[in-house]
Amino acid sequence: MGKIILNGEIKNRSDVSVDIEDRGYQFGDGVYEVIRVYNGKLFAGEMHLNRLLDSAKLIQMKVPFTVAEMETRVKELISEDGLQDGIIYMQLTRGVSPRTHVFPSSDVEPVFVAYTKEIPYTGKMKPGAKGITTDDIRWLRCNIKSLNLLGNLLAKQAAAEAGCDEAIQHRDGLVTEGSSSNVSIVVDGTLKTHPATNLILNGITRQVMLKLCADHGIPYVEEPFTVEEMMTADEVLYTSTSVEVTPIINIDGGMIAAGETGPVTKKLQQLFSQEIERQCGSID
Amino acid sequence: MGKIILNGEIKNRSDVSVDIEDRGYQFGDGVYEVIRVYNGKLFAGEMHLNRLLDSAKLIQMKVPFTVAEMETRVKELISEDGLQDGIIYMQLTRGVSPRTHVFPSSDVEPVFVAYTKEIPYTGKMKPGAKGITTDDIRWLRCNIKSLNLLGNLLAKQAAAEAGCDEAIQHRDGLVTEGSSSNVSIVVDGTLKTHPATNLILNGITRQVMLKLCADHGIPYVEEPFTVEEMMTADEVLYTSTSVEVTPIINIDGGMIAAGETGPVTKKLQQLFSQEIERQCGSID
Repeated sequence: MGKIILNGEIKNRSDVSVDIEDRGYQFGDGVYEVIRVYNGKLFAGEMHLNRLLDSAKLIQMKVPFTVAEMETRVKELISEDGLQDGIIYMQLTRGVSPRTHVFPSSDVEPVFVAYTKEIPYTGKMKPGAKGITTDDIRWLRCNIKSLNLLGNLLAKQAAAEAGCDEAIQHRDGLVTEGSSSNVSIVVDGTLKTHPATNLILNGITRQVMLKLCADHGIPYVEEPFTVEEMMTADEVLYTSTSVEVTPIINIDGGMIAAGETGPVTKKLQQLFSQEIERQCGSID
Repeated sequence: MGKIILNGEIKNRSDVSVDIEDRGYQFGDGVYEVIRVYNGKLFAGEMHLNRLLDSAKLIQMKVPFTVAEMETRVKELISEDGLQDGIIYMQLTRGVSPRTHVFPSSDVEPVFVAYTKEIPYTGKMKPGAKGITTDDIRWLRCNIKSLNLLGNLLAKQAAAEAGCDEAIQHRDGLVTEGSSSNVSIVVDGTLKTHPATNLILNGITRQVMLKLCADHGIPYVEEPFTVEEMMTADEVLYTSTSVEVTPIINIDGGMIAAGETGPVTKKLQQLFSQEIERQCGSID
C-alpha cells in the first residue's frame, strides 16, 4: 500500500486518518468493495462500482461520485502505485457527524477511502480448500455489502481455528454462502447455488461464473441446497474476488469429490482464467 | 466534548484520529457502552463496564484494562471536562492491522476511545413517546453490544421519518426490543418484557428497572409478547440509558393507554429517579 484515495484526492498513506465520529467507526455505517487487478487492469470494475452504488442505495446513503469518476480515480491510484497484480479496497461511509442513530442531515459528506494491495498472480487457481459448516447468524440484508461484518468475522475465525480456509454458513440446514465467498455444488453435471436473495451477497465472481455457465452450456440452477446435499455432492466450489473459482475438497473433516478438483470446477477455472485474459490481457 | 481518552491517555479532541485500517472502521469489529452521568457521577458505572468486558469476550476480544482501571480513567475524564450531567461514550475495537477477516495476532492492541457529551438533566422523565413497529432484521447475537449497528440505524431512521421516537422491532410478530432501547408492556398490573436471550441487548436500565420491580412488589415476567398484545396493553414503556423510563403512548398511529402515562410506568419513573438520587446524589 502506497497511496490512498481520501474522498477526491490521492494522498500519502501516512497523511490519512479518520475521525472517531466517522459513522463508519461508530456504527459500521458504510459499504465497501474489493476489486481485483490483473496486469494493471481492473477485473469486472464496472460491476463492482455499480454494486457499491447499489449497496449505498439500500442503506439510503448518497454517493457523491459517479461510477465513471470513481473508475478514473481508481485507475490513477493503480498507476501511482504501479500496481500490476493485486486488489483495490474501497469503502464509503456516511460521514462524520455527532453520534446519533438517525441519519445526519444531507450536508454531511460521505467519506470515501481506497487503497491497493499487491497479490502476486500465478495464473493457477488453488488446487483445493478445506471448509467447516457453521450456523449463519448474520442479519437479513446480506445482499448489502456493508461494513457490518462481525458475523462474517466470527465464522471465518472459527474456520481458521479449525485449520480450514472457509466457513460455509447455513440457516436451518440450508446453505447460504461462505463467510467471504459464495458456495456452489455440482450434482450430476448441474451446478447449484443459492439464489441472489437478501440472504446472500450476489458475488461478482458468482455472476461472472453463471454467465460463463450460460455461455458454455454448463447447466445450472439458482436454488438453495441443504448441508446434506453438499456433503454428498459430486463437487463443491467457492468463488470470490480473492479465491476466484476454487474447489472445496474437505468439509468438517469429510472428503468431497475424492479430494480432487472435479471436472465442472476444472472447466470453470479454465473459463474464468480465459475471462481474466479477455478483460485484462494475457498473463505471463 | 472536550477531551478524549485514547487508549490509556487523555488527549485533546483535535489531536485524536484513527487509522483507516482500524478493524472498527473496516469491519465494525468492536464493542461499546454509553454511561449516564448525573451530578458528575457515573450511574450504574460498574454494570456498564462489566458489560463491555462481557461483549468483548463474546467476540473473543481481549480487553487490556480492568474495570477498575477504566473507571478511574473515565472519572478523570469527567473531571477534566467538568461534566455535571450527560453521557460518556466509549468503544473498544480489535485494533489496527492489515485487513483480513481472521483475527490478527495477539500482539495487536485494541483501541479504546471515550469521550463525554453534555445533556442537561431536568429530573423530569419525558411525558410520552411515539413508536412504529418494524421487522427485526438484525443478526442473532443482539446480546453483544457491538459496533455492527446498521440494522438498528435503519429501524431508527424509519421511526424518525414517520415522525416517531423509536422503532419497536419484532421477529415473526414477537416483539424483541427497540432500535436503541428495551420495550415492556403492562397488562393487569404485571410488567412483561422479552427475556435476556441472544435476541435482545440486556439493557442496564432494563436490569435496574426489574430490580426496582422486585424490590417494590411490582409483579413482572420475562416473556416475549406479540405485537397484538402490545397494541392492546394497558401500558407500553421503553427504557435505555438515554430515555431512562419513558411511556410509549402511540404506536403506528394508534393510541396506547389513552395517550397518558399509566400508573405502573409512573411508579417506575418515580423509583428510577430515586435510584438516580441514591447513586448520584440529590438533583436540584
